[in-house]
Amino acid sequence: MSTKPTIALAGGTSRFDQVLSRLEHFNTIFYPVPATKEELFKDCLPGGPLANVEGLFCSWPAFYAMGGLKTEEEIAQLPASLKVVALCATGYDQFNVAAFRKRGIIVTNTPSMEPSHSGEQVADIALYLSIGCMRKIPLFEGSFQREKNSIDARRVVAQGEFDPASGQVLGGPPSGFAFGDLTAKGPARMCRNRAVGVAGLGNIGKAIVRRLAPLGVEIHYYKRSELSAEELAASNLPSDLIFHSSFDDLCAASDQLILALPGGADTLNIVNKRTLNLMPRGASIVNIGRGTLINEDDLLEALGSKQIATAGLDVQVGEPFVNPKLFGRWDIQLLPHLGSGTEDNALAAELNVIDNIENVLNGGPGLHPVN
Amino acid sequence: MSTKPTIALAGGTSRFDQVLSRLEHFNTIFYPVPATKEELFKDCLPGGPLANVEGLFCSWPAFYAMGGLKTEEEIAQLPASLKVVALCATGYDQFNVAAFRKRGIIVTNTPSMEPSHSGEQVADIALYLSIGCMRKIPLFEGSFQREKNSIDARRVVAQGEFDPASGQVLGGPPSGFAFGDLTAKGPARMCRNRAVGVAGLGNIGKAIVRRLAPLGVEIHYYKRSELSAEELAASNLPSDLIFHSSFDDLCAASDQLILALPGGADTLNIVNKRTLNLMPRGASIVNIGRGTLINEDDLLEALGSKQIATAGLDVQVGEPFVNPKLFGRWDIQLLPHLGSGTEDNALAAELNVIDNIENVLNGGPGLHPVN
Repeated sequence: MSTKPTIALAGGTSRFDQVLSRLEHFNTIFYPVPATKEELFKDCLPGGPLANVEGLFCSWPAFYAMGGLKTEEEIAQLPASLKVVALCATGYDQFNVAAFRKRGIIVTNTPSMEPSHSGEQVADIALYLSIGCMRKIPLFEGSFQREKNSIDARRVVAQGEFDPASGQVLGGPPSGFAFGDLTAKGPARMCRNRAVGVAGLGNIGKAIVRRLAPLGVEIHYYKRSELSAEELAASNLPSDLIFHSSFDDLCAASDQLILALPGGADTLNIVNKRTLNLMPRGASIVNIGRGTLINEDDLLEALGSKQIATAGLDVQVGEPFVNPKLFGRWDIQLLPHLGSGTEDNALAAELNVIDNIENVLNGGPGLHPVN
Repeated sequence: MSTKPTIALAGGTSRFDQVLSRLEHFNTIFYPVPATKEELFKDCLPGGPLANVEGLFCSWPAFYAMGGLKTEEEIAQLPASLKVVALCATGYDQFNVAAFRKRGIIVTNTPSMEPSHSGEQVADIALYLSIGCMRKIPLFEGSFQREKNSIDARRVVAQGEFDPASGQVLGGPPSGFAFGDLTAKGPARMCRNRAVGVAGLGNIGKAIVRRLAPLGVEIHYYKRSELSAEELAASNLPSDLIFHSSFDDLCAASDQLILALPGGADTLNIVNKRTLNLMPRGASIVNIGRGTLINEDDLLEALGSKQIATAGLDVQVGEPFVNPKLFGRWDIQLLPHLGSGTEDNALAAELNVIDNIENVLNGGPGLHPVN
């Protein structure tokens, strides 16, 4: 008699028939998002719902709110039967993957390119925020929703007083004419010829660079080692990218900084008061990497002083519980971690997770192991 | 004794020293935006401020709110001394340029490429709205500002009821998990592989296509005649663009329609109930051309029925007085005609206007005549 292996689907799945029919190959436990680590560990004890699971289908928010699994003590409390944690995400900074390896648990992720194209989708969001921040679009959008007249909206943004506390432009009697060439009394510049610095030139960073190229911007990047002409050509990247071997140098050179770095201890608060002050006055910042890359208090201070003009944040510290001060500002374009949040990616990523679980449970090393 | 020619600067200028010093070559009258045509025509009578002007430096909003100058009777009331109307804009649909020619007045515009790059800047705005509408970003932004929690924001957008009257997603207790793969219960799709139709393949349309190419979308276009392989290559466009000889065919083929057409009688209400219904259900529309291209009542009805999922409008009917129903909706991304509204373009365009006026007043045909 063949018995189906038991897996737990943590945090839910989308509603795809293709996924549900594949889950029938397993004894699948639908496990809701636990509120606390204590709740999770209790459910791992003998008799608990997770007691005998061999695989964990782990949706992105499954363990995010409770703070991930980062210590050996925590990981020791997972079921002894567990062989694979398959993440339905590219990033894995919620998990101490080395400690999982030590316990013999394989962790797999969803690669950012084929089959899901999730990295391309994150890059589309980065491009959206890049243009929005360079052209200071949210300031005009906020003003337009308030003034309800397109010329007044532009006049107010150009000539009104910027309020550091709210990040909005105050009203008052508009006078004279504005072409739209000012925002909050600072220049509104075209994208063309601006220096855009991409921090992190992995698959996502490269996809961002390919999208930026037609805008005529000057593209800088920071990476441990410079890409050769052959490597640039192989990735279909422009040959005139400007390399920086240090993050500080990239900040100093960039009218806009795009963060495409992974999270974790190495990059914690890499954008802080010191590095923000290295940037040219009136620069902008886009973050599609991880919220932890930015010290948000320092960013808010820099926005208030207009050292930084605009920020586009698809990720925030402490997601899903976001600093209330980030809301309602016209100088912050705030997205709820849209990244690759599409039907296309959900389907591809979920099928990929099942492929990874099957591979490990059949004795393989995992298709996309990260530890 | 040399006398300086008299010109009027209608609607104001930006504050550039380079422009102000060039204006010293003229006897320059700073003429504010007239409230009505009657006011303008009164000012053209003998003894009025515009009585003897030879050139008109015409900022974009100068005569927009009063409805432009479109009949021979109106144009006949302009000063007999007037030789050139130099527009600080690319579009000239506010003006009946044939009637101006008949009266012997040269009308010039600002070209969309060199020296101002204004077309490139309009294309950047188009790209921003294109990604925003395809990924349905404003729905997530609106939800995030309300829910203040990134997972709840995504859940509500995925599972909440769409309210046709407000264009927003209603709240209610979120249940289950959403990857972000749904918006207002419709699919959130990646940009890649979507069919994007560009209506109008002039300089701006071509700049839009070059920006769309790295997104991996399937690009369609509508034009009177198909571009040859040589023409495509000369404009640095992809070779696999899909040509349509009719606007109806383009609508039927496009998951997203981008309007890069000029205004005027030929294109009035080209997007209407009939053509909206030709599009695939759930399609989106971006307009960076002219507000008059779209019948806004028909668009609002199509948004309410979800035939159209999202619209990104940088231009509206009746600017600067915009239909109040367009505000406050999460399914409309509304910009106050940002187009090329940057410092870079303002400076280049204003210098170009002065070049055109000087050329005509020195006996030339104008550098960029449109009539």
